[in-house]
Amino acid sequence: MFFPEFDNSRLTAQLSGSRFTVVYRLAGDEQTSLAKAKDICAEQSVEFPVGILPDGAIPQQIVGRIEEFVPETENVYRAKISFADEIAAGEFTQFLNVVFGNISIKSGIQVAGLELSKTVFGLVPGPRFGISGIRGIIGVSGRPPLFTALKPMGLSADNLAKLAEQFVEGGIDIIKDDHGLSNQVFAPFEERVQRCAAAVQEANVKFNRKSIYVPNITAPSEQLLDKAHFAKEHGAGGLLITPGLTGLDQLRRLAAAKIGLPVFAHPAFIGSYVMSQEQGINCGVLFGTLMRLAGADATIYPNHGGRFPLSVQDCADIVQKSREPLEAFKPIFPCPAGGMELHNIDEMIRQNGKDMLILVGSGLFRCGDDLAANCRMFGEKIKG
Amino acid sequence: MFFPEFDNSRLTAQLSGSRFTVVYRLAGDEQTSLAKAKDICAEQSVEFPVGILPDGAIPQQIVGRIEEFVPETENVYRAKISFADEIAAGEFTQFLNVVFGNISIKSGIQVAGLELSKTVFGLVPGPRFGISGIRGIIGVSGRPPLFTALKPMGLSADNLAKLAEQFVEGGIDIIKDDHGLSNQVFAPFEERVQRCAAAVQEANVKFNRKSIYVPNITAPSEQLLDKAHFAKEHGAGGLLITPGLTGLDQLRRLAAAKIGLPVFAHPAFIGSYVMSQEQGINCGVLFGTLMRLAGADATIYPNHGGRFPLSVQDCADIVQKSREPLEAFKPIFPCPAGGMELHNIDEMIRQNGKDMLILVGSGLFRCGDDLAANCRMFGEKIKG
Repeated sequence: MFFPEFDNSRLTAQLSGSRFTVVYRLAGDEQTSLAKAKDICAEQSVEFPVGILPDGAIPQQIVGRIEEFVPETENVYRAKISFADEIAAGEFTQFLNVVFGNISIKSGIQVAGLELSKTVFGLVPGPRFGISGIRGIIGVSGRPPLFTALKPMGLSADNLAKLAEQFVEGGIDIIKDDHGLSNQVFAPFEERVQRCAAAVQEANVKFNRKSIYVPNITAPSEQLLDKAHFAKEHGAGGLLITPGLTGLDQLRRLAAAKIGLPVFAHPAFIGSYVMSQEQGINCGVLFGTLMRLAGADATIYPNHGGRFPLSVQDCADIVQKSREPLEAFKPIFPCPAGGMELHNIDEMIRQNGKDMLILVGSGLFRCGDDLAANCRMFGEKIKG
Repeated sequence: MFFPEFDNSRLTAQLSGSRFTVVYRLAGDEQTSLAKAKDICAEQSVEFPVGILPDGAIPQQIVGRIEEFVPETENVYRAKISFADEIAAGEFTQFLNVVFGNISIKSGIQVAGLELSKTVFGLVPGPRFGISGIRGIIGVSGRPPLFTALKPMGLSADNLAKLAEQFVEGGIDIIKDDHGLSNQVFAPFEERVQRCAAAVQEANVKFNRKSIYVPNITAPSEQLLDKAHFAKEHGAGGLLITPGLTGLDQLRRLAAAKIGLPVFAHPAFIGSYVMSQEQGINCGVLFGTLMRLAGADATIYPNHGGRFPLSVQDCADIVQKSREPLEAFKPIFPCPAGGMELHNIDEMIRQNGKDMLILVGSGLFRCGDDLAANCRMFGEKIKG
C-alpha cells in the first residue's frame, strides 16, 4: 500500500467521464498485439504497473481503455484505446504525449486514427482560412490553384523578386519561398520579404492578377511571431512554416496568434514518423489531421511518383484527412509536391479533384527556357 | 539561362569558406548509395537540378560536397557531406533542416555523425551545468546519482509531495515529475511544484540531504519560460522538458534563457527517429549530441534490457556522445531509464562507469512494500 493518503472520491469528482480515442495499428500475432494494446493503456498514462495502482479511478479512468481490438490483416491488429480528456491537461503538447509519447520508442505501433472529444478539439485553433479562405484571397475557383517555390538558395533577394515577378506573369497563384530560405546572408529575411512581396504586388497590377507571396518564417521560436508580423506588414499573402523544425506546437502558436494570413505547413524533418507502416504516425493523421488541428490552412506533402517514397494510399489518406468533415474545422488544401512535373498533373487531378494546391517547383525549369511560358503551360495543363 | 541577373562575385564574397560536415549512413549497393549521397548534396541545399544552376559559387559552395564515401558493411556506405556555414543562416532550426530536412522523407538515409564548425557550435547554448554542475548541486561525487520519478498520474499534489519526501528519506538525489504530469486538474502545475519543492526542502533538512526536485515544464510554448521561472522561484532544483513534444528548438530556447537550473531532456515522442538502423538519426547523435548542443545537462533515454528496444550499441553511442570532448561544451549525464530495476544496476555501472544518472521509477515499487527502504536498497546497490 504505497499511497495511503490517495483520495479516490476527490479524483473521481475531477473526472468528467469524457474521453478521446486513438486508433493504433499493431504489428504481431493476436497475443503480441493484444499485449501491446494493454501496454499502451499504461505506458501512455500512469506509466506504472497496473497491479499496484491504488484501487478506483486511477485504474478505471486514468489508465487507457481498450474500446475495440480487431484484426486488420494477417499479423496486424487495430486497437481503439480511449483516454480521459483530463489527462491531456488542456495542452496540445500533452495531448501529443498521450497519443504517441513513450510508445514512439516501441516497435510495431503506428498511430492510425484519432477520434477526438470536444475538449481535445478545444485545445487547438484549427485552420483560420482553409480552402475557401485561400481561394477567396487569390480569387481562384473551379480549378486547383497553381503553386510554386522561389529557389535556388544562393540567389539574392533581388534575384528572387525577379523570379517572383516572372511567376506572376506566367499565372502562378501562390509563390512561396523554398523552405530552406530562412535568413541566409545572401537573401536575408527582411530584405527578401520586402523585395518579393513588392515584386508580386507590382506584377499583380501589371498583369491583372491576385497572386500571393508566402515567405518562410521558420525560425528559432523567439523570432517566429515577429517574422510573421513583419511579413504581414510588408505585403505577404501567407506564411510558410516547417513544424518538424520548430515543433508542431509552434504551428499551433502561429495559428492561435491570428496574424491574419493563411499558414502553409512544410513536411521537412518530420519524415521519420511516416517512413514505416509498422511504426510512427499514419501519413493521413500526421500531414492531414494533426497539421489541420494545429492550424495549417494548406499541408504540403511529398507526392507519390516524385522524388519521395510515399505510396498512392498514403497520399490518398492525406487528401482525405485534409478535407473530411472534422468537428467545426475548415477543410484545408492538400498540396502534393516533391518532384512533380507537368506530366503528373492529369493524374493528380484525377486522384484528388480540384481542391488541392499543385506545387511544381524545379519542374517549371525543366520544360523550356522561358520561365513565364513554362508557367503558362502549367496553367493550361491545370485549366485543361 | 534562368538567372541572368545573378551576381556570382557578390555571393562569393559573402561565403567564408568555412563548412560543417554531416556523416550519413546510406543503405544500398555502391551505385545506389553514391546516388543517394549526390542527391543529399542538392536536396539539403539548393533543392534544384544541379545541371541548370548558374555557374560559380552556387554549385561550387552552396550545394553540399561529398568529402568522403566509404563502404561500412555489405550494402551500407558512409558519406561525409559538407555544407557552407552560411546556409545554416545562424539558426538552430535551419541547421537541423540542412542536416535532415527533406531527406527525413527519403528511405535508406541515417544521420550517423556531426562534425561541426565554430559557426555552427555558436548557434546553440550547450549545457549550462553538465555533469560537474549537477554533481555540485546535489553534492554527490564518486558514484552515479540516484534518480527517480513521481508517479502515477492521478495522485494529488499532496500525494506526490508525500512520495517525494519518502524518496528523500530513502536517499534519492534527484526526483523528477513523471514526464506525463503537466497541468492536470488533479495535480496542477503550480500547486504541484510548490508542494513537491517544499516537501523536498523540508525532507533535506530532516534527513540531512541535498536532493533536488525537477518538475516537468513541458507545455505549450507561450507558457514554457513562465513555468521555468515559477519553478526556479519556488525551489525546484532542475527542469524537465520533452523536446519531442515542444520541438528541439524549445530546449535550446530554455537553455539560452539562463534560468539558473539544470535541464533534463526526456525522449518521449521523438522515438521514430531512432527506430530503424536504415532511416532517421543515430541514437548517439539524437540523444547525445543534439540534446547536448541544444542545452540539456542530462539526457534520459530508454536503456536496453528494459521496456524499450534500443540495442547495447545504441546505448553505448548515447553514453559516448554525452560525455566525449565536444568543442567547449560540458559533458552531460546520460540517464539510462525505461523499466530499469535494481538488478540492472551492476551491468549499467560496468558498461557506463559512474558518470551517469540511474533512473529507476516503477522499479522502486516492485521490490518491497516500504518505499524508503527500497530506495535505500537502490542506494546500496549503487554504492556497491
